[in-house]
Amino acid sequence: MNTRAALRIDGTRLWDSLMALAQIGATEKGGVRRLALTDLDREGRDLVCGWFRDAGLAVTVDRIGNVFARRPGRMPDRPPVMAGSHIDTQPSGGKFDGNYGVLAALEVVRTLNDHGVETESPIEVAVWTNEEGTRFQPVMMGSGVFAGEFDLVEMLKRADLDGKTVGGELRRIGYAGTAECGNRPVGAYFEAHIEQGPVLEDTQRQIGVVTGVMGLRWFQVTITGQDAHAGPTPMHLRRDALVASARIVDGLNALATKRAPHARATVGFLHVKPNSINVVPGEVRFSVDMRHATSEGLDALEAEWRALCDTVTRATGTACAIAQISRFEPTRFDGGLVSAIRDATAALGYGHMDIVSGAGHDAVYLARVAPTAMIFVPCEGGISHNEIENARPEDLEAGGNVLLHAMLAGAGTSV
Amino acid sequence: MNTRAALRIDGTRLWDSLMALAQIGATEKGGVRRLALTDLDREGRDLVCGWFRDAGLAVTVDRIGNVFARRPGRMPDRPPVMAGSHIDTQPSGGKFDGNYGVLAALEVVRTLNDHGVETESPIEVAVWTNEEGTRFQPVMMGSGVFAGEFDLVEMLKRADLDGKTVGGELRRIGYAGTAECGNRPVGAYFEAHIEQGPVLEDTQRQIGVVTGVMGLRWFQVTITGQDAHAGPTPMHLRRDALVASARIVDGLNALATKRAPHARATVGFLHVKPNSINVVPGEVRFSVDMRHATSEGLDALEAEWRALCDTVTRATGTACAIAQISRFEPTRFDGGLVSAIRDATAALGYGHMDIVSGAGHDAVYLARVAPTAMIFVPCEGGISHNEIENARPEDLEAGGNVLLHAMLAGAGTSV
Repeated sequence: MNTRAALRIDGTRLWDSLMALAQIGATEKGGVRRLALTDLDREGRDLVCGWFRDAGLAVTVDRIGNVFARRPGRMPDRPPVMAGSHIDTQPSGGKFDGNYGVLAALEVVRTLNDHGVETESPIEVAVWTNEEGTRFQPVMMGSGVFAGEFDLVEMLKRADLDGKTVGGELRRIGYAGTAECGNRPVGAYFEAHIEQGPVLEDTQRQIGVVTGVMGLRWFQVTITGQDAHAGPTPMHLRRDALVASARIVDGLNALATKRAPHARATVGFLHVKPNSINVVPGEVRFSVDMRHATSEGLDALEAEWRALCDTVTRATGTACAIAQISRFEPTRFDGGLVSAIRDATAALGYGHMDIVSGAGHDAVYLARVAPTAMIFVPCEGGISHNEIENARPEDLEAGGNVLLHAMLAGAGTSV
Repeated sequence: MNTRAALRIDGTRLWDSLMALAQIGATEKGGVRRLALTDLDREGRDLVCGWFRDAGLAVTVDRIGNVFARRPGRMPDRPPVMAGSHIDTQPSGGKFDGNYGVLAALEVVRTLNDHGVETESPIEVAVWTNEEGTRFQPVMMGSGVFAGEFDLVEMLKRADLDGKTVGGELRRIGYAGTAECGNRPVGAYFEAHIEQGPVLEDTQRQIGVVTGVMGLRWFQVTITGQDAHAGPTPMHLRRDALVASARIVDGLNALATKRAPHARATVGFLHVKPNSINVVPGEVRFSVDMRHATSEGLDALEAEWRALCDTVTRATGTACAIAQISRFEPTRFDGGLVSAIRDATAALGYGHMDIVSGAGHDAVYLARVAPTAMIFVPCEGGISHNEIENARPEDLEAGGNVLLHAMLAGAGTSV
C-alpha cells in the first residue's frame, strides 16, 4: 500500500505530450485549430494512437470514430475503469481543452507501466469524436452516440457547411471503425479537464472535485415595441424595445447573482432593429442562457425571469415572445467516484474544493450509462475556447496524480 | 381687415397638389422614394416649378439647386417673406415630410392670387436641395449652404455611393442654377411641416406653434469587459459588457424621462461582441442621441449620464470610452414670428400648443440668417420617414391657413 500511495505521474512527460499534440494545427497566437474529422484531426489521432500502441494498449475504434485504448487487468471480465476526453478543438481553440483529459489518462497508463502496476480491472483511455460541435452539430456527438442519446445513422449523415458528412469524413481520415457504438460496458468513467472558468484560480485551489454539471436552458426572446424618431418622440410616448430589453438583461443578471454560486444567467446575443442612431428601436431579439445545479433551481430562476419579462413589458408598452431552444437537465455525478477523487486529492495534499461544472462535457453523456465523475484543474484567467488558453504545468501534474489515484481506487491493484 | 381675416386657403387644392407630387416616386406601400438629385427629383422639381410659373411666380435657382419662386410686393426693395421646405424624400419616405411645407406655401400664393391680394413685401416660396441627406451627406445641405454653414465648392464635390457628385447631378437634372448662394436677404422665414412625432395627436391639438428646435449631441460609446464562458464563469467573477451597457441604457432613459418634456435620450444602435449565445460579452458599442431645448439642459443631462457611466463601469469591472460624434446647439425661433403664428392660430380658432421640435429642419439654418419660425400639424401615430406616413386633410388645411395669416402679418397687405 505504501508503494501504491507513493505512485506519481511524470508531469514533464505529460506536459511534453500536450505540447507535441498542440503542434498539430498550431496557430500563430499560440492556440490550436484542429476541427473534428479534418486532416489535422487525423494527424492528431494518429499521433495519440501511436502513443497508445507504444504504451502497449489495444486500440479499438467504433463506428462514430470514438477511440478506446485498453490496458488489460487481472480480471478481464470486469468492465474497465475508463478515462478520457476529446482532441478536437474550437476554431480558435487552446492546447488544453479536451487534450488534457486524454493525455492525462495516457500518462496514468504510462505510469502504471513504468512501475509494473497490474490492476484488477482493465484500464481504458477514451477519445470521443467531435466534442466541440463547431464543424458538425450537435456538440458531444461521439459520447452522445456511445450513450445512446443520438442515433448513429442520423449522426453519420450530419454535414458541415461544405456538405461533407461525418460518415464520409470518418472514412476519408481512416477512423470509421467497425466496433458497435455503446456495446462496451464501463465500470467507471473519469474525465480530467481544465476548469474553463476562474473559480479555482480565484480561490487558489489546485483541484476541483466536480460533483455534477449544471442543467441548462436556452431561450430566444423577441421584444416588440414601435420604431419612432428619436427627436420628435417624447419619452412618455415611446415603446422602446431596447430599453425594455436592457431592463430584462440587467434584472436577469440580478436574479442569477442572488442565487450564487449555483446559478448562471447570460445574455450573450442581442440584435437591435432597425439599429440606427436616431431611431427608437422597435424590435430587439436576444438569447438567454440559464444554468443551475438543480432542476428546482432552474425552475425557480425561469419563473422569476418570466415574471420580470411580464413586469417590464407592461411598464414599457412592449410585447415579449419567449421560445425555449435548448434544454439539458442537471447531472449529478456518482457519489462513490466523487468520493474517490476527493479522497485521492486529500491524500495527495492538494488544495481542493467541490465544484459544479457550468459547461457540458463528454462526461455528461457517460454519466447516463456508467458511474462518472470529473477532475478540474485551474486555467489561467478562466479563459478557454481561446488561443490564449493556458494552464500551469504543476496544476496539470496535480490533476494527473488525482486521476491516477482515483482510477487505482476504482480499478483495484495487486501491488 | 374683415376681408383679410376671412381669407382661407383651398384645402382640397392643397391635398390634390400633395397627391400629384406623391405620384412621382410612389412606392407600392403608399410612400414615396424620391432621393435628392435623381431623375425623380427632377420630375418633382419640374412639376412644382411648373405650378410656380402657373401662379405667376418668377423662378430663380441658385448654385446648390435651391429654388426661389417670387411673387412681387408693392415695396420691391423690402426683403421677402419666405416660406418653404424640401421635396426630396427618404429612401422609404412618405408623402408629406417636406412636400407639405413647399405646397402649403404655394397654396398661400394661389390664395392671394385668387383674391387679388397685394402684399407690401414680396412673397417667396423656397425649395431647399437635399434636406434628407441620405444620398449625399450632410443633411440640410441646400439651406446650410444658403446660410453659409457649408462651403458651396465643397458641397458640390460630395459624392454618393456610386461616385456621382452633387455638382454633376445638379447639372445633369438641369438644376445647377447661376444665382449666388445666400446672396438673398430674407425678411422672415416660415416653414410648415408635419410634426413627425406623436404629441399633437396625443394631446388632440391641430397646430403646434414651434418655438425652437432642440439641441442635439451624438456619442459613440464602447464598453469593454472580458469575454468569458457563460457556463463556467460565476456571476461575481464576470466583467459583462452587455450588463453594464444595459444598466446605462436603462439609466439614461430614466434621466431623460425625469427631465420631460424638453429632454430626449435614445440608444438606437447597439452591437455586441462576440454576440454568441454562450459567451459573456466582452465588448459592446452603442450610440447615444441626446436632445434638449436648452444648452444648459443638454449640459446637465450629459453630466448626469457621464456620472452614470462611471458608476456602472466601476460596479461591473468594465471600462467605458465615450466619443462625441455630432453636435447641434438648440435653436430659438424669432419671438415676433412665433407670436404671429400663435396669434393667427388663435384667431382661426384652432386648438394649439407650443412645441419644441425634436428633429432638425431647414428652418434651423434659416434661423441663423433670418427671423424664422415653424408650424407643425399632426401626423398619424407620430410616424414619419416611413411609407405609411399619413396626415389628415383638415389638419393640413388648418396649417395652411395659419401659414397664410402669419405670412400676411409679416408681409403687410393693402386689402
